[in-house]
Amino acid sequence: MRIVDLIEKKKKGLEHTKEEIKYFVDSIMNGTAADYQISAWLMAVCFQGMTIDETAYFTEAIINSGERIDLSSLGTHIADKHSTGGVGDKITIILIPLLAACGVPVAKLSGKGLGHTGGTIDKLESIPGFRTELTVDELIQKVKDTGLAIGSQTKNLTPADGKLYALRDVTATVDSMPLIASSVVSKKIASGADFVVLDVKYGSGAFIKTPEKAIELSELMVQLAQRQEKKFNAVISSMEQPLGRMVGNSLEIIESIEFLKGSMPDDLKELTLKIGALTLLHLGKASTETEAVSLLTDAINSGKALEYLKKLIISQGGNADVLYNYSLFKQPLYKKEIKAETDGYIKNIDAYKTAFACKLLGAGREKKDDEIDYSAGVVLNKIYSEKVYKDEVIATLYSDSQEKINQAVPILKSGVEITTQKPEKRIIVYKTI
Amino acid sequence: MRIVDLIEKKKKGLEHTKEEIKYFVDSIMNGTAADYQISAWLMAVCFQGMTIDETAYFTEAIINSGERIDLSSLGTHIADKHSTGGVGDKITIILIPLLAACGVPVAKLSGKGLGHTGGTIDKLESIPGFRTELTVDELIQKVKDTGLAIGSQTKNLTPADGKLYALRDVTATVDSMPLIASSVVSKKIASGADFVVLDVKYGSGAFIKTPEKAIELSELMVQLAQRQEKKFNAVISSMEQPLGRMVGNSLEIIESIEFLKGSMPDDLKELTLKIGALTLLHLGKASTETEAVSLLTDAINSGKALEYLKKLIISQGGNADVLYNYSLFKQPLYKKEIKAETDGYIKNIDAYKTAFACKLLGAGREKKDDEIDYSAGVVLNKIYSEKVYKDEVIATLYSDSQEKINQAVPILKSGVEITTQKPEKRIIVYKTI
Repeated sequence: MRIVDLIEKKKKGLEHTKEEIKYFVDSIMNGTAADYQISAWLMAVCFQGMTIDETAYFTEAIINSGERIDLSSLGTHIADKHSTGGVGDKITIILIPLLAACGVPVAKLSGKGLGHTGGTIDKLESIPGFRTELTVDELIQKVKDTGLAIGSQTKNLTPADGKLYALRDVTATVDSMPLIASSVVSKKIASGADFVVLDVKYGSGAFIKTPEKAIELSELMVQLAQRQEKKFNAVISSMEQPLGRMVGNSLEIIESIEFLKGSMPDDLKELTLKIGALTLLHLGKASTETEAVSLLTDAINSGKALEYLKKLIISQGGNADVLYNYSLFKQPLYKKEIKAETDGYIKNIDAYKTAFACKLLGAGREKKDDEIDYSAGVVLNKIYSEKVYKDEVIATLYSDSQEKINQAVPILKSGVEITTQKPEKRIIVYKTI
Repeated sequence: MRIVDLIEKKKKGLEHTKEEIKYFVDSIMNGTAADYQISAWLMAVCFQGMTIDETAYFTEAIINSGERIDLSSLGTHIADKHSTGGVGDKITIILIPLLAACGVPVAKLSGKGLGHTGGTIDKLESIPGFRTELTVDELIQKVKDTGLAIGSQTKNLTPADGKLYALRDVTATVDSMPLIASSVVSKKIASGADFVVLDVKYGSGAFIKTPEKAIELSELMVQLAQRQEKKFNAVISSMEQPLGRMVGNSLEIIESIEFLKGSMPDDLKELTLKIGALTLLHLGKASTETEAVSLLTDAINSGKALEYLKKLIISQGGNADVLYNYSLFKQPLYKKEIKAETDGYIKNIDAYKTAFACKLLGAGREKKDDEIDYSAGVVLNKIYSEKVYKDEVIATLYSDSQEKINQAVPILKSGVEITTQKPEKRIIVYKTI
């Protein structure tokens, strides 16, 4: 078998056999396939696609390119969730203690973010002392001791995907359904999950722009998981506007704490409870969605969920005093308020522009080794459909650099729309698969 | 400008600006564009194509990536020819002395072959002592002294194309009209040609399979040349069966010598005279094609063309005694005859299978540094439409390896078709553009 022939085959739109896919992925790992051949093949896939069989073989080969974490000592059903990425998306941080409070052991592996704000791991590391570099054994032991733990992904999970992703990023071959789906599903399965709720986002702040495309991707991922004998559900959700009121790293931790204290913005509440309920239903902790939602809200109202967040922070070396004293987080040097220029209702705060502003403020990283400013970000004092009066503060920007704030303000401002009529309730959860 | 954005643009089917094309080609040369980015772009071009403007900018940028040979001291009209590659194609070797004998100074630059048999340079180097590594000054001086010279291409011509071709070859991105056309035209123009006859071949022994595609490629190349203010003509010719009776390196030199001695197979004669006549017409050496053809045939019949081949060989250090003593060529260790299994007429000797057999016999090279067996090859004792009797010899295979002959025989045999009725005259020159 020659790599150039496999590229030619894909270019012609023909279907690879299981052996060909396995050979190709093995060749990525052992260096038989040169980077320039891999990228040519990736571009051909962008044009010709892959059948469900090819994509399933590809997913399996990627899983087998590295180690596979065994969490079976924690029970027979290991649940996980995955978000395709959104602005202000702190749901994982809320769900870990919330599910633990509902009696579900949570062993979560998550990634550092390359994007407009950090990933879940970056956000948690904004808590002074919080440590996420755990071995799998440490992770399992912490779950056994306290009921929950979160670790940053090890380098040995799906290394073929790591290599592919690095190439896709610089060769304009990211946006291919089979490549995206196999990347997500392989990583989740290699992480030891049996059941995963996928939060597939669409809209200006997501890489998928329409609900139709989000459905297509979701159905593909659910099918790929079935082929690996795993059950995945997907929640298709809107990312036209940021989730909740805060976007940044420590800011999102603060909003998560507030949420567990009972201060829940509607959009964040709807989506968090939906994902939480699907998990409880799957694990047999509830028999109806209503029952599941009431278990979750009870865990919040009783303070039990917040208690689990405290356990998590302490168990992983963090300073749990942050729960009641937000000034323990690193504080930004500068802030700037954006005020309404007219009376009205908030019709839109564009998710992409908010994210772009956050990146300019220093909340994200462009390259793997970039430093993140944990305190940088945006607080939305007003969000969708809320009444606002002229000169009232709509948003507050935080950064260690006045210059960065000056750059970010016009971007964020250009994403704000105020209307005279109160807008209708917007869709958060579009569909569940 | 970022390379990844240029790839994305081409992937979407958008048109590059002149500046973008120039930046891309410059980036190939200075290393800003990584190989894996170049190959992803090439694959996107295979799917999306390039407009004539893009292709013209690309051609110009490739010309400018290296040096441009100045042959103007030889006169105002420097003529050249280029073949897209065929089996048994020794026309360049015949034309160099033939045109020189008609009073046209010939300064030819040619390449070594990567393929089933060697290139023109390899064939000439099968003449004992023949040296083709000439500097441009040596080339020009030899033309001034003797009227003709041929040199192997220097590395400084169109280096961007060299880099691109190396990548295309291993990433299944060879077959793209704008990439093929820009590669040929840029190299010819950088070689100093004002006028070029392109021999664009179609059929089983060519990389283009149909006359329609050959026409498309020809028209594109002629247009690209116009954009560089050069005149190119194209002859579209059949490559379903080998040209002439001999395929190999020294074998093709022998057939060229025989041709100049007056022994001219019909197909080889038709195509050689067509290309030669177009050149004489363009240079004003004749005013009608009939007149041009008679100049050419006179040069053969008078022995003047053979005399020029002798001058060429002597001028470049070769042993001109080969003209009358073919045993001075390296002799093969083994030979094997293929005999007819029935009476009839030759209906087909497949060009591709003949070429593949020659490669197996050792006449070609797969990698740049492979050794060529100059004496390896095939003599077709019978060719298209000739009568053959059972047990008469159809073809003779030559090689230094009995094993290679054993491998090649069934390949060649499977390409031979014998029919009971004499086939009609076949098309050699399909069209002239």
